[in-house]
Amino acid sequence: MEISEIATHEPLVDPILSELAEEDGQLSEATRAAILELPSEAIAALLESLPVNSRLQVWALVSDDERGDVLFEMHDDARRHLIGEMEEADLRTMAARLSPQELVELNELIPEKLYSRRLKLMSIKEQTAVNTAMRFDDDQVGRNIDSDFISISENLTAQQVMRLLRQWQIPSNTDLLCLVSEDGLYAGSVQLTDLFNAHPQQQINELKLEEDPAVGAEMHMSDLADHSYQNHYAMTPVVDDAGHLLGRITSQDILGWVQDEAESQLLQQAGLSEDEDLFAPVKRSAKRRAVWLGINLCTALLASWTIGLFEATLEQVVALAILMPIVASMGGIAGSQTLTLAIRGLALGHLSSSNANIIFRKEILVGLLNGIIWALVIGTMAGLWFAKPAIGFVIGAAILVNLIFAAVSGVIIPLILDKLKIDPALSGAVILTTVTDVVGFFAFLGLGSLFLV
Amino acid sequence: MEISEIATHEPLVDPILSELAEEDGQLSEATRAAILELPSEAIAALLESLPVNSRLQVWALVSDDERGDVLFEMHDDARRHLIGEMEEADLRTMAARLSPQELVELNELIPEKLYSRRLKLMSIKEQTAVNTAMRFDDDQVGRNIDSDFISISENLTAQQVMRLLRQWQIPSNTDLLCLVSEDGLYAGSVQLTDLFNAHPQQQINELKLEEDPAVGAEMHMSDLADHSYQNHYAMTPVVDDAGHLLGRITSQDILGWVQDEAESQLLQQAGLSEDEDLFAPVKRSAKRRAVWLGINLCTALLASWTIGLFEATLEQVVALAILMPIVASMGGIAGSQTLTLAIRGLALGHLSSSNANIIFRKEILVGLLNGIIWALVIGTMAGLWFAKPAIGFVIGAAILVNLIFAAVSGVIIPLILDKLKIDPALSGAVILTTVTDVVGFFAFLGLGSLFLV
Repeated sequence: MEISEIATHEPLVDPILSELAEEDGQLSEATRAAILELPSEAIAALLESLPVNSRLQVWALVSDDERGDVLFEMHDDARRHLIGEMEEADLRTMAARLSPQELVELNELIPEKLYSRRLKLMSIKEQTAVNTAMRFDDDQVGRNIDSDFISISENLTAQQVMRLLRQWQIPSNTDLLCLVSEDGLYAGSVQLTDLFNAHPQQQINELKLEEDPAVGAEMHMSDLADHSYQNHYAMTPVVDDAGHLLGRITSQDILGWVQDEAESQLLQQAGLSEDEDLFAPVKRSAKRRAVWLGINLCTALLASWTIGLFEATLEQVVALAILMPIVASMGGIAGSQTLTLAIRGLALGHLSSSNANIIFRKEILVGLLNGIIWALVIGTMAGLWFAKPAIGFVIGAAILVNLIFAAVSGVIIPLILDKLKIDPALSGAVILTTVTDVVGFFAFLGLGSLFLV
Repeated sequence: MEISEIATHEPLVDPILSELAEEDGQLSEATRAAILELPSEAIAALLESLPVNSRLQVWALVSDDERGDVLFEMHDDARRHLIGEMEEADLRTMAARLSPQELVELNELIPEKLYSRRLKLMSIKEQTAVNTAMRFDDDQVGRNIDSDFISISENLTAQQVMRLLRQWQIPSNTDLLCLVSEDGLYAGSVQLTDLFNAHPQQQINELKLEEDPAVGAEMHMSDLADHSYQNHYAMTPVVDDAGHLLGRITSQDILGWVQDEAESQLLQQAGLSEDEDLFAPVKRSAKRRAVWLGINLCTALLASWTIGLFEATLEQVVALAILMPIVASMGGIAGSQTLTLAIRGLALGHLSSSNANIIFRKEILVGLLNGIIWALVIGTMAGLWFAKPAIGFVIGAAILVNLIFAAVSGVIIPLILDKLKIDPALSGAVILTTVTDVVGFFAFLGLGSLFLV
């Protein structure tokens, strides 16, 4: 038995680009065949690895049936571009074949008319699934459910259930059967494998799991991601407030969400959206990034303004201008260390208002200790560099002040943002470095004015 | 049926801290009971939310049986501290009850003697599982497997398999049966639910999945995380090069790994380890963070040295000192945007040497466009601020130069680091901002020397 290789798009990027760059601009038969053999996820990755013009030629090869699947796996900008380039007839054909989950995911990108037409042609069960999902936010469990689950009356016997299962197509990732009461409410779950050991005449509801695995549809996905790690099934039943079974969410869906979320966090830190397309048009990319640059300019101006307060001092002691960046950047680094730990602490529930003052005191002590050490190191170096001990004293004192301020800000800023329901991972770093820049320049140049002029 | 609430440690932090701060320093009966009701994961989080002295008092409540479970869920520093504080007898008792997965996870933290003693008392199957896992790195699939899977001879009939399953305890997250050939090699997998539809006399190996879900034990966990999203089972069989079935890995285990990895990436960016304990002793925390501060100091000194080259110019035109940080910081921000996109592109396989030159050209154009826009904006502002158009021209030109350099570095640095097998998420940002600082200061002060003196 051979181990399956992971099918990846990467070896195809090179041949596609060179074949399309040739005179006839056509893909070879071999390349076409290789593309069509890829699973949808790999085709999605392939499309996102190609510049927009080549992308369209590969997209033309994807069958109507697979297009929904492929789009489902792509980032928003790249999807929007492909959909925008499709002929109306092709778009209509594709829309008519979307699964409920695909329809929900792509709802904002396809015309309203095609959305309702597709919805009307679905089974009642699928329609309900779509309408249910649309009631929730992207980050809520209810939005991420599927309707591929087995629900069974709780009044059947094990044998009756086995008989039913033999007639049904059992969806993948099914390790639980959901029970429904006579009045249509969720009544608990049975582990599929417990059926093997059951007596044929045993009532199915006697096999119910004691610790019910169901969760509410309003739950935030990140809570479920932690929760799902705690319980031990491949799927989690999802119910509404009234106790109706809305659907299920699989571990794979949770994993996908966690991966997207991690990616999004990394991009947010640079003021980018996770939807960003590597090959987006230059103008659009430049425009989007300009916003973050503009915000940064405001904070940089604040720092410059602080420096400007000490113009007269700088004229007299140019060494201050040379050493300035060291004070600001040491503060920024120390602060971002505290900030990062605080953000993780908040995310894992290790940091809360109950223990914030303990962390606060600890971080100030860490700042003080590292402040003293680096004040001595940098002070000595600067004193020697400019052959003027007073400069060493001034920069050392400024480093100490800035590292303590950095520690204070690193704890307080995320706690305040969290209280204001703003994600500290998004704006925490910008606010923090503004503080450490301003405090650093003010302390350094202020002390310089006092002792060096 | 009531929806299960997620059991969380957070409401307990406050009462524990205040009860322990009282005169008798004892936990109330109610608090003890609430702690003991928490699942292991929540106890782990609770311990990490408490300062070290309170932590020990809660740890004393945890039963010998649960301690391995709880440690398994904790970060390394916090684990090490608890183990270090345990009496030898307690440690021995705990070690004797570790599961194979726990023993592997904690192997570096418990004494060699206790490790081998525990191993000797395990079943042959468990011993093999531990020894197998220990052959691989943390990030390889082989290290993360468990031995809780069902393997069955491929020569049995469906009915015989059903009979066997009735006698066995079926582990959670089992949706596949692994088949083994007569010579002991992995021979494919059968979806458990396919047994329901099988004829009793059908050979089990006729039900084998066509696309085999097994993966090699050498595979990197991140590849599996993407792969697992592609296939559709709650578990993945893991085999070695010779085709022996080593164990399985569940979607939950993959999810746990992905979450740890995301956390680790965020912390690495601030030069921190994911093992960092929020309540680690001040001295140890300060020492660890000092390393990153020291690296940063070297880069800051390089920036200062660049500024120092233009000491004479700065003495004459103090406006340059005031505006300096703007040039450096705009370059840093623009560069980190390109860098972040490139790092994500590398991680998803969207960016490779095949298409790097296309991205490279695009990013330079984005840098050029934003460079022109911000050169005009900042140039105008600076010219007005200092009532000297030449200053506006100098800063504008420096911004333009730095934003183009930032784009170039943002693509090239991660590609080079990736070729050198260094994770660009770890050191990319430090190298990048060093480049943008030095280039920014050099361009700005250099142009200033030419045109303003």
